[in-house]
Amino acid sequence: MRAVLERLRTGVIGVDEAFEALKVLPYEDLDFAKVDHHRRLRTGFPEVVFCQGKTIPQILAILGRLTVHNDRVMATRATPEVYAAARSDFPGAVYHEAARIVVLERQGARSAERVGRVVVASGGTADLPVAEEAAVTAEVMGAFVERLFDVGVAGLHRLLDRRQALTSARVVVAVAGMEGALPSVVAGLVDKPVIAVPTSVGYGANFGGLSALLAMLNSCAAGIGVVNIDNGFGGGYLAAQINRLGGGQAS
Amino acid sequence: MRAVLERLRTGVIGVDEAFEALKVLPYEDLDFAKVDHHRRLRTGFPEVVFCQGKTIPQILAILGRLTVHNDRVMATRATPEVYAAARSDFPGAVYHEAARIVVLERQGARSAERVGRVVVASGGTADLPVAEEAAVTAEVMGAFVERLFDVGVAGLHRLLDRRQALTSARVVVAVAGMEGALPSVVAGLVDKPVIAVPTSVGYGANFGGLSALLAMLNSCAAGIGVVNIDNGFGGGYLAAQINRLGGGQAS
Amino acid sequence: MRAVLERLRTGVIGVDEAFEALKVLPYEDLDFAKVDHHRRLRTGFPEVVFCQGKTIPQILAILGRLTVHNDRVMATRATPEVYAAARSDFPGAVYHEAARIVVLERQGARSAERVGRVVVASGGTADLPVAEEAAVTAEVMGAFVERLFDVGVAGLHRLLDRRQALTSARVVVAVAGMEGALPSVVAGLVDKPVIAVPTSVGYGANFGGLSALLAMLNSCAAGIGVVNIDNGFGGGYLAAQINRLGGGQAS
Amino acid sequence: MRAVLERLRTGVIGVDEAFEALKVLPYEDLDFAKVDHHRRLRTGFPEVVFCQGKTIPQILAILGRLTVHNDRVMATRATPEVYAAARSDFPGAVYHEAARIVVLERQGARSAERVGRVVVASGGTADLPVAEEAAVTAEVMGAFVERLFDVGVAGLHRLLDRRQALTSARVVVAVAGMEGALPSVVAGLVDKPVIAVPTSVGYGANFGGLSALLAMLNSCAAGIGVVNIDNGFGGGYLAAQINRLGGGQAS
Amino acid sequence: MRAVLERLRTGVIGVDEAFEALKVLPYEDLDFAKVDHHRRLRTGFPEVVFCQGKTIPQILAILGRLTVHNDRVMATRATPEVYAAARSDFPGAVYHEAARIVVLERQGARSAERVGRVVVASGGTADLPVAEEAAVTAEVMGAFVERLFDVGVAGLHRLLDRRQALTSARVVVAVAGMEGALPSVVAGLVDKPVIAVPTSVGYGANFGGLSALLAMLNSCAAGIGVVNIDNGFGGGYLAAQINRLGGGQAS
Amino acid sequence: MRAVLERLRTGVIGVDEAFEALKVLPYEDLDFAKVDHHRRLRTGFPEVVFCQGKTIPQILAILGRLTVHNDRVMATRATPEVYAAARSDFPGAVYHEAARIVVLERQGARSAERVGRVVVASGGTADLPVAEEAAVTAEVMGAFVERLFDVGVAGLHRLLDRRQALTSARVVVAVAGMEGALPSVVAGLVDKPVIAVPTSVGYGANFGGLSALLAMLNSCAAGIGVVNIDNGFGGGYLAAQINRLGGGQAS
Amino acid sequence: MRAVLERLRTGVIGVDEAFEALKVLPYEDLDFAKVDHHRRLRTGFPEVVFCQGKTIPQILAILGRLTVHNDRVMATRATPEVYAAARSDFPGAVYHEAARIVVLERQGARSAERVGRVVVASGGTADLPVAEEAAVTAEVMGAFVERLFDVGVAGLHRLLDRRQALTSARVVVAVAGMEGALPSVVAGLVDKPVIAVPTSVGYGANFGGLSALLAMLNSCAAGIGVVNIDNGFGGGYLAAQINRLGGGQAS
Amino acid sequence: MRAVLERLRTGVIGVDEAFEALKVLPYEDLDFAKVDHHRRLRTGFPEVVFCQGKTIPQILAILGRLTVHNDRVMATRATPEVYAAARSDFPGAVYHEAARIVVLERQGARSAERVGRVVVASGGTADLPVAEEAAVTAEVMGAFVERLFDVGVAGLHRLLDRRQALTSARVVVAVAGMEGALPSVVAGLVDKPVIAVPTSVGYGANFGGLSALLAMLNSCAAGIGVVNIDNGFGGGYLAAQINRLGGGQAS
Repeated sequence: MRAVLERLRTGVIGVDEAFEALKVLPYEDLDFAKVDHHRRLRTGFPEVVFCQGKTIPQILAILGRLTVHNDRVMATRATPEVYAAARSDFPGAVYHEAARIVVLERQGARSAERVGRVVVASGGTADLPVAEEAAVTAEVMGAFVERLFDVGVAGLHRLLDRRQALTSARVVVAVAGMEGALPSVVAGLVDKPVIAVPTSVGYGANFGGLSALLAMLNSCAAGIGVVNIDNGFGGGYLAAQINRLGGGQAS
Repeated sequence: MRAVLERLRTGVIGVDEAFEALKVLPYEDLDFAKVDHHRRLRTGFPEVVFCQGKTIPQILAILGRLTVHNDRVMATRATPEVYAAARSDFPGAVYHEAARIVVLERQGARSAERVGRVVVASGGTADLPVAEEAAVTAEVMGAFVERLFDVGVAGLHRLLDRRQALTSARVVVAVAGMEGALPSVVAGLVDKPVIAVPTSVGYGANFGGLSALLAMLNSCAAGIGVVNIDNGFGGGYLAAQINRLGGGQAS
Repeated sequence: MRAVLERLRTGVIGVDEAFEALKVLPYEDLDFAKVDHHRRLRTGFPEVVFCQGKTIPQILAILGRLTVHNDRVMATRATPEVYAAARSDFPGAVYHEAARIVVLERQGARSAERVGRVVVASGGTADLPVAEEAAVTAEVMGAFVERLFDVGVAGLHRLLDRRQALTSARVVVAVAGMEGALPSVVAGLVDKPVIAVPTSVGYGANFGGLSALLAMLNSCAAGIGVVNIDNGFGGGYLAAQINRLGGGQAS
Repeated sequence: MRAVLERLRTGVIGVDEAFEALKVLPYEDLDFAKVDHHRRLRTGFPEVVFCQGKTIPQILAILGRLTVHNDRVMATRATPEVYAAARSDFPGAVYHEAARIVVLERQGARSAERVGRVVVASGGTADLPVAEEAAVTAEVMGAFVERLFDVGVAGLHRLLDRRQALTSARVVVAVAGMEGALPSVVAGLVDKPVIAVPTSVGYGANFGGLSALLAMLNSCAAGIGVVNIDNGFGGGYLAAQINRLGGGQAS
Repeated sequence: MRAVLERLRTGVIGVDEAFEALKVLPYEDLDFAKVDHHRRLRTGFPEVVFCQGKTIPQILAILGRLTVHNDRVMATRATPEVYAAARSDFPGAVYHEAARIVVLERQGARSAERVGRVVVASGGTADLPVAEEAAVTAEVMGAFVERLFDVGVAGLHRLLDRRQALTSARVVVAVAGMEGALPSVVAGLVDKPVIAVPTSVGYGANFGGLSALLAMLNSCAAGIGVVNIDNGFGGGYLAAQINRLGGGQAS
Repeated sequence: MRAVLERLRTGVIGVDEAFEALKVLPYEDLDFAKVDHHRRLRTGFPEVVFCQGKTIPQILAILGRLTVHNDRVMATRATPEVYAAARSDFPGAVYHEAARIVVLERQGARSAERVGRVVVASGGTADLPVAEEAAVTAEVMGAFVERLFDVGVAGLHRLLDRRQALTSARVVVAVAGMEGALPSVVAGLVDKPVIAVPTSVGYGANFGGLSALLAMLNSCAAGIGVVNIDNGFGGGYLAAQINRLGGGQAS
Repeated sequence: MRAVLERLRTGVIGVDEAFEALKVLPYEDLDFAKVDHHRRLRTGFPEVVFCQGKTIPQILAILGRLTVHNDRVMATRATPEVYAAARSDFPGAVYHEAARIVVLERQGARSAERVGRVVVASGGTADLPVAEEAAVTAEVMGAFVERLFDVGVAGLHRLLDRRQALTSARVVVAVAGMEGALPSVVAGLVDKPVIAVPTSVGYGANFGGLSALLAMLNSCAAGIGVVNIDNGFGGGYLAAQINRLGGGQAS
Repeated sequence: MRAVLERLRTGVIGVDEAFEALKVLPYEDLDFAKVDHHRRLRTGFPEVVFCQGKTIPQILAILGRLTVHNDRVMATRATPEVYAAARSDFPGAVYHEAARIVVLERQGARSAERVGRVVVASGGTADLPVAEEAAVTAEVMGAFVERLFDVGVAGLHRLLDRRQALTSARVVVAVAGMEGALPSVVAGLVDKPVIAVPTSVGYGANFGGLSALLAMLNSCAAGIGVVNIDNGFGGGYLAAQINRLGGGQAS
């Protein structure tokens, strides 16, 4: 864009010509897209590849492209096969197995300092993969994360025992399937934002996570934002964004 | 039936004739229907009229018929208009306004002794009509009832404060709308049967009570039986049946 | 907790110190959780592991932990592979194949006396696994159980023939798929609590058991509590709780 | 059409001209539509106007047009206001109030002889309008109809008492709301076609009749055809068609 | 039952004893069940086994029991494996492969005369298994069946060409997936009962056959009864019952 | 934008300044928004106000603003009250009552020439408001429109009679409620685009138009685009856009 | 039909005989079906086979029949196995792998000239198969197609960069899963018809594409027609029909 | 609690007695509830009353109780009638009419300083009440709020024009009905948390806001948390919580 303006200023082209040139200039050359990109690098937020429904060659190709311009790239819903393939192309690849996440970090990249405090709480053992996806995502995005797993509402004392951990968080990610009551109970105990992640854990009339989703949307407690069913990544990402608002030091 | 058998025995009719007669005898003359009726009177369970969708003349006619053979008749979903009409036909009619129940009791009927202990817990103020319907139903059916209203899970301490009341119940009726988490939390605190009554209280994605209903069906706690949305009567009735199993004395 | 109190009494610590100590004491050290635990042992109710969605190592680990403190542990939705694995770790493991339940009993544990009477009725042959899950669960929890299988409403005489069995029950578990009418018919025949278990048996517009679930929730008969689709365990557990209210002797 | 052919035969037009003429002749001049019409008159099946969602002037205009060519016209879902208006235009109009049906019969029209036997059974008092709509429709279409109202499955003896009436029917219309179990039970008692009419009677998780509809579609009994929710007209119409197949005499 | 009466008549037992005996006599010994059974044999309707969800040993056991008392037994949803197994136990077993039906006929059983006329029409090639299931079922139940396959509404001329076949039927079974419009169009062309069978054929927003099911229930044409999705057996069974009402000769 | 460029060319501002200025220039000053606006005027497409859910003062204010810059403005879902109010502010307002559309046309505006041919076909009388909304919308947008109302699929001859009208259309708008089969049948008769408009006409299991919507989405005929339930405006708008592609002369 | 008319004209048959003959003549001999067929050939629209749910022998048989009368036949949802089989029967078969389409073209058939301009835009990589199905379908039907893939709304600049391509289209096919917002944004940028194709891409609460489908039906932008979930063929077919209205030259 | 400890320390009671006393002490005397309450006052978060479904006397009673202990109380979903009643009891009551919120502030209460920046963006005019509810809620909770109304995705330039406002927010509340695409587009433009509020605005297949809800849950953009349909209060509350994390000064 500057080149066009320069050529106009020096009389190489006229106003009409400049007008036309500016109208067809690719958007990204003058606007937020590039700014976004810079901001993304600066904040240390990684680029993300959602592996589910992509072939391994497709995933490798996208990873290859992204690692050129990014210090840190993460691939979610990555099977062990994806990791095996990624490791031969990118020797430093790290696999978070329970979270099903592969992380590629550029050598020499400034290590992501973990700041603030995100608590990831989950209801049952079967919710663990989603909860780990949330936790690892938030960590890769620079959040200090504390895990409170297996604190479902049917055994309330397990949750109440960890009240101090909950209240020291900047934001809580509450992961639960079945009746999805955990976020309601948590939001009644803390006065910080709660990100609710419904899971498809359960059977019968849970309708693939619909029961937990509806419960979370209809919570009688205020201060809850809900993400898609089994969307641990989305929950961790949003939590890390919120956590970052609190500034740089660990709390 | 005995008449037929007697006539066969005395030779008035033959085997073939008796066979035919017995095949067409009205069922109720030989079977459980009558027994049921006797048992109902004996147990003190009232006959019930569901008023919703019936005209006042229809309701009065049914009440009139039922009061002939029953010590105690209750009409649920009764509007003030229904009560006004009932009162002129049946001067002793009692109206439980919050519960929307009219009770007619035969003069001189042995008063229903209240036994055992049914706790009716409810989440929010708006669930009160359904909770009261459950409570009054259980009382009319002879249960001693304790009400724990406004103990929703978003303010857990309100519920935990009443733990002793909960654990002394033979059966708990947990009434809640919105995310419907109350029965899960209650069933985690007591080891007695919990009857879950979802209500249509809420808005948006509660879909007329579906959110609470699904949450209750998918509870991670065992020992919960669910009734229809807003079915306070059904919850109170079932609780009273269960309560009666524990025997006659108040607990 | 007693230790803290003792140290306060003996002057080792002051009131302020004791106050602080008690505030952070793990909940389970002072409250219902432990009491619950004791009560659970006393009542003979077993601890339960839901195997579906867990790996065999996970299941074995949980079983190992639970058998330390419990006389009796049951694992539901256990495949033959789970049983084979459990048997090598726990030689006394018993497999209820149709019910898909593995039971571990501590050697020398006081055998569970079967009391009361729970009738488990089911509609069709395909409902058998769910019905057996309910029946075995109730038995392991100490209920005397009578099975009335294949008594669906399309052949009413099969059910009516067993009326005497039904009316002698303290509580009936009615298991049915497809149109799910069995609980309605049963509740019209008995005046005891009926636990309705919808199954996913059927096809087309049964929508994975939704047809039976809705039918049971909308029953025109009172006295029915519904559990989740295919939740035989939940039905049997609730029935055993109710049955126990009737006291210790077999009826 | 004959005119065209005649003109071709007599040479007034050529083959090409005739070909074109026949191609554009209104369909109804050569085909089934007219035949249908004749058949309809001959069979005594009436023309039907569905009043719901039409203004009274629209209804009167349609009735006026239909009565020109038909011996018998019926208007369904007719409010008292529709009847009042119809009566002033058509003095002989008859109103079946419970069924919400107005019948107009041409003076001197051969009265419809009632043949065969259609039994209309219904579950509860609130199903009466739909059941009456079915019954009156079948009668207007020439069927002999027997009504068995208030025979819901929760009080099975009421239905079993009327087994003889059921088994003497050519076809049974079973009308029920809530859990919609009546058709299943009826189809298990008779070996004749059963037309199932779900009603929207109920509340909560009946979802406007969905519970009864799904139950009827998923019946474990064979020989059931289902019509739309609250579609008493459709049920009576189909039953009358089936009944007519059995021939002219009353059974 | 006669034995009891006879013993009463001859004084072996008294009235009281007879009364008790009759009260506990198995239902089937005195009532409709047996009559049903007789009627079933007399009408030539076969006993039916629904194979889906049953193991081959279970199926063989049930077939073995049924063939003792029935001239004709059919097994629906039978895979080739089921047929292979059935053939070794029952050498005369016949397999209707497209319909997935195995038929066992008692040697020397009076062959089922095919009467009346049932037309089975279907929309597309993929609906064929369901349409064949309907057709074979009706044939086994004694109906003369004519097949009109691949006459979907998007190519209306295919259907209109066969109008004569349609109008000569006593009852039409219309099988269609996707938008499920075939029954509406057929019911507009004939004045006989139409049995609508929705299929799960389609993809995307057909939701497993829901689109066709709803279309058929909401038909603007009267005279349509709907069965469950993919329930070819149910459609053929109901059609055969209706067809039989028209009497014995082929039409 | 030209002003900025001119100032750069003449040296009033430098490249940096120009760069900044262009980055913050309101979008609409340099891009498609304005072009769109011009194109809209040139094509004669009107601006549209959706009245439902707006107060009359709001509607009048919006109309007032739009009429300043537009030759032709239309207001959809306009009640008679809206029209009465609009008429006093805009004396030339025209009300299409059945379509519930008010049209305001600037005095002296070049009258919209009607080109091409859009056929609007509808199933039943009750679909008329939606069909008229589609027809009037297409007319206001410059299409020649032919109406084929009351041509539902249950009386196929009515539709086949008008085949010539259908095949001469550039695009057909097919409006239907209940089973929504009209678009499928129409798309089988013509080889032009068909716009399907489902209506909420019906009752019971039509679920507010869902039955028609699903049927249209699942049509076995190709060449059908579906709009929202009752969205006559959307159907007419899309049809007019398509019709215009065929060029200026009436066909 | 002409033969009949000729025989009437020459007196071989009389009017009555001709009348009867014409009434029973197969429809296709006199009407639109044949005309359709001619039109189809003339327009170059291919015959289409939907492979999903058909066996390879069935597909080959249908292809064989269609290639006799058609210059061009396409098979959609064709797996590599289908292609392999087709290639041995039809050596000139071409496989569009990403689109899962096999095209058979008669040797010497006039090659389809590509006219107009259809833009196929898609949201994400995973939507590619559906987008390609739409693109190839439109190409085979004679449309010039431009692909704009991976222009989802979360990265708006990618779409805005291609505004010129969008605005030069006669019709845009917008393919998107998840929240399905692409058609709304596109329809706000262009004033041409937009065909919206929802895909099942996503997880959790996308319910197999329902989220995208509902979003597209509820677009706040006018000028959008929606096809079934994953129905790339339907989208491409409708777009090609619309594109053809614009006449023969490429734009 | 201290009293008990003191009595133990001074020997008035023993350890056992203290143990028992502590076990039954009301929860609220030692725990978070009170702390919560203090924290709430300190943070300036108001107490909230949800008026919908409550009578005016009930509302006034609750308001009266809350104003005793709180500096600031807000009542949501307050009709003008509620406001009129509140004003006579609480003369300083302020009514935010568009937001349907009444605010009561204690005289002399430290005025809430507005910090940070919350942007509330909404799609259409009809979403205004929900958007205002979010905006006023956030303001009452101490957030500086900027409103960007009427920036729906069908006119993208309106939104892009306000990009600078969006990117300067700490958190964006995106309110939209119909296809609910606004949050996706916004989240692609900013890297801050986005709170998505679906509204019930729309008709037909929007199913009371379900279309917007599903779209928001399925967004292809990360960083979005969703609240219930029409839940402006919930969106504003969560946004204010997040905004507060960024610290005290306005940004």
